[in-house]
Amino acid sequence: MSVKLEIAQEILLNLVTVMPKERVALQECWRRILAETVTSDIDFPPFDRSPLDGYALIAAEVAAATPENPVILKQIDYIPAGETSDKPVSSGTACRIMTGAPLPPAATGVIRLEDTVVNGGDVTILEGRGAERNICLRGEEIFSGEEVVSQGTVINAGVMGMLAVLGKSRPYVFCKPRVALIATGSELVPVDFPLVSGKIRNSNSYMLSAQVAEAGAQTVLLGNASDNIDEIAHLLETASDCDVFVTTGGASVGDYDLISEVYKKLGITLLFDRVSIKPGMPVLAGIRDGKLYLGLSGNPAAAAISFEQLVRPVLMKMGGRKVWWRPRIKAVLATPFNKPTGAKRFVWARCWQTSTDIFVEPSRAQGNGMLKSAMAANALIVIPENSPPLPVGTEIEVILLADA
Amino acid sequence: MSVKLEIAQEILLNLVTVMPKERVALQECWRRILAETVTSDIDFPPFDRSPLDGYALIAAEVAAATPENPVILKQIDYIPAGETSDKPVSSGTACRIMTGAPLPPAATGVIRLEDTVVNGGDVTILEGRGAERNICLRGEEIFSGEEVVSQGTVINAGVMGMLAVLGKSRPYVFCKPRVALIATGSELVPVDFPLVSGKIRNSNSYMLSAQVAEAGAQTVLLGNASDNIDEIAHLLETASDCDVFVTTGGASVGDYDLISEVYKKLGITLLFDRVSIKPGMPVLAGIRDGKLYLGLSGNPAAAAISFEQLVRPVLMKMGGRKVWWRPRIKAVLATPFNKPTGAKRFVWARCWQTSTDIFVEPSRAQGNGMLKSAMAANALIVIPENSPPLPVGTEIEVILLADA
Repeated sequence: MSVKLEIAQEILLNLVTVMPKERVALQECWRRILAETVTSDIDFPPFDRSPLDGYALIAAEVAAATPENPVILKQIDYIPAGETSDKPVSSGTACRIMTGAPLPPAATGVIRLEDTVVNGGDVTILEGRGAERNICLRGEEIFSGEEVVSQGTVINAGVMGMLAVLGKSRPYVFCKPRVALIATGSELVPVDFPLVSGKIRNSNSYMLSAQVAEAGAQTVLLGNASDNIDEIAHLLETASDCDVFVTTGGASVGDYDLISEVYKKLGITLLFDRVSIKPGMPVLAGIRDGKLYLGLSGNPAAAAISFEQLVRPVLMKMGGRKVWWRPRIKAVLATPFNKPTGAKRFVWARCWQTSTDIFVEPSRAQGNGMLKSAMAANALIVIPENSPPLPVGTEIEVILLADA
Repeated sequence: MSVKLEIAQEILLNLVTVMPKERVALQECWRRILAETVTSDIDFPPFDRSPLDGYALIAAEVAAATPENPVILKQIDYIPAGETSDKPVSSGTACRIMTGAPLPPAATGVIRLEDTVVNGGDVTILEGRGAERNICLRGEEIFSGEEVVSQGTVINAGVMGMLAVLGKSRPYVFCKPRVALIATGSELVPVDFPLVSGKIRNSNSYMLSAQVAEAGAQTVLLGNASDNIDEIAHLLETASDCDVFVTTGGASVGDYDLISEVYKKLGITLLFDRVSIKPGMPVLAGIRDGKLYLGLSGNPAAAAISFEQLVRPVLMKMGGRKVWWRPRIKAVLATPFNKPTGAKRFVWARCWQTSTDIFVEPSRAQGNGMLKSAMAANALIVIPENSPPLPVGTEIEVILLADA
């Protein structure tokens, strides 16, 4: 049964659920997905504090101070960072204060050190305007009870810092989906085996393992299997702790139909066996006990695109993310795309901005199995179904491969 | 000594060298930087092969075959994937062949199974045009001796697959620079400690550890130190196996000048102590025994920008990359930026494309220490030095934070 891409995506996305959560040490959380909505239990800053080194004082008392008409105050205390003072400032007094230290009681402003002259126990204020602005108010960045970071947020540098501010030393993050990878094909040998006549190395598992990692999931490499139903079935069953099972090869109609036989043998319910995209039309999808099985083409170009369009969104959803799709933009074709297109087509491409436009062109060599195109690509051109050959200057949709 | 940003970058980049290389198992190489230029020692495909299931034959002999005028051939052999045949096809014969299998000797084309009818030991060719196009020629993707991937390439999915094709099961990659992080400030407590009066948690180390990871380097978290020269100096000396040393806090003139004292104590030569950018002006840079020491501001907004502009390019160079800088594009300001700007300024921002343009606007809340802006940003606006307030519609340079 062949289905349209959007239908296939919907079928798969509807069948998977978000992974359970786990606690992870904050320093290991970069790029993980937050599995809790974090509400602050503190004000931040937790106290009124000084943003600079200077003197805390009564702002109104020094507002008019100038070098010609300075105001002289008596220093009553000194507060380094990390310390506090319980001595209130009052008319005629000031308290030396360091960057980050809490204001003393009753202080309403701070004058920076550069605008003062210190003379024994006295300080002379030479420039007194705006002292009230030199205070970071308690709670001005975060207030207690505020919802600061929501579940599903990707933990970037800013979020990491914020979680530290809030004391989340072991936040809940979503477990990474575990993806079993098997390359099938009697022509395959492992990557560290000598090449003998008629054989090629298993490259699909490695290519896909990078795609799995980029989708925030974890690869379980099960190696390669020959074109043998029992062997493939056995390998799949050894990985029962995995969440998603991806094979490459044996998926085309006209091949041995190996993977559909494997699914039958294992009691995996077939959802569809072809998707109308190019490359990547042969894709089997099955389900058993709530776990997805995907059978991709053995052709690397096809496997990569099928993974990108069908497996990646599933892993993004399972990983607990808010956004499952890559960003899409419009760009202008810089070289013609001369093939007429039946099924929706995805083409590895480079895009770049000039002073006038964003341009895109297919990476060289779009033939079958061409890893070179994928190596150099930063985008995929999306060619709609039933398109004529496209001339230079056509405005076209582009999927950005950088993760934003 | 205050220096311009570009000068500071040049000083630092000129002082660091690329890390040594190490061998890493291919499945661990995603996002690592290739430390060798890989030349193929095989043709790929390693033999003329069939891209589909069908019959290998003499193409010219069947070129005119149609359903009305079929050509009947005798099947002389069968080649599954991974096997070879040494029986040459000749006039009147064909060899059954599976996808990926090597062509038998003398075959010049393949007809797909769907265009044939099999009858005992004979095969009837119903559609014979273009058989010669159904061959993947030996070396058509890669030829022996071809330089396929160059040193400094980031290992993405395509490169991963390519290295597997070439049998590079343990390629050389550059060692990740090890970056020691220390947060200084007597007001700091570790993230898992209770907050007491006058204290805040160390968030800078966590924020920076994410920035370090994103630059492809490895963090060594040394925790936090109070405002004490000996304590900071001692902590730095415990991490002698690190390649770069980054502290936060104690960097502003008017603070205790702690870090410059630490540098003096440890015999670290000061390169500069201020850089004309905002935020992030206080930055000390020092060198000792060929290793860089960077003293960033304790203010998170300033530390993040200084890291981004000064430490990140250094780590990218040390990591062996070809490109040390993030992509920059032009975008249109969607909200005004009302502050006049003296020193070059970097503003956390969101950018997006509409049908007419790429727009950018500052993330809300650009105040000091505002992690919220950084959490939501996908770009940094670059505001040139000595800029007036910028109205809506200003075309402005933007640094994209997604890693392309």
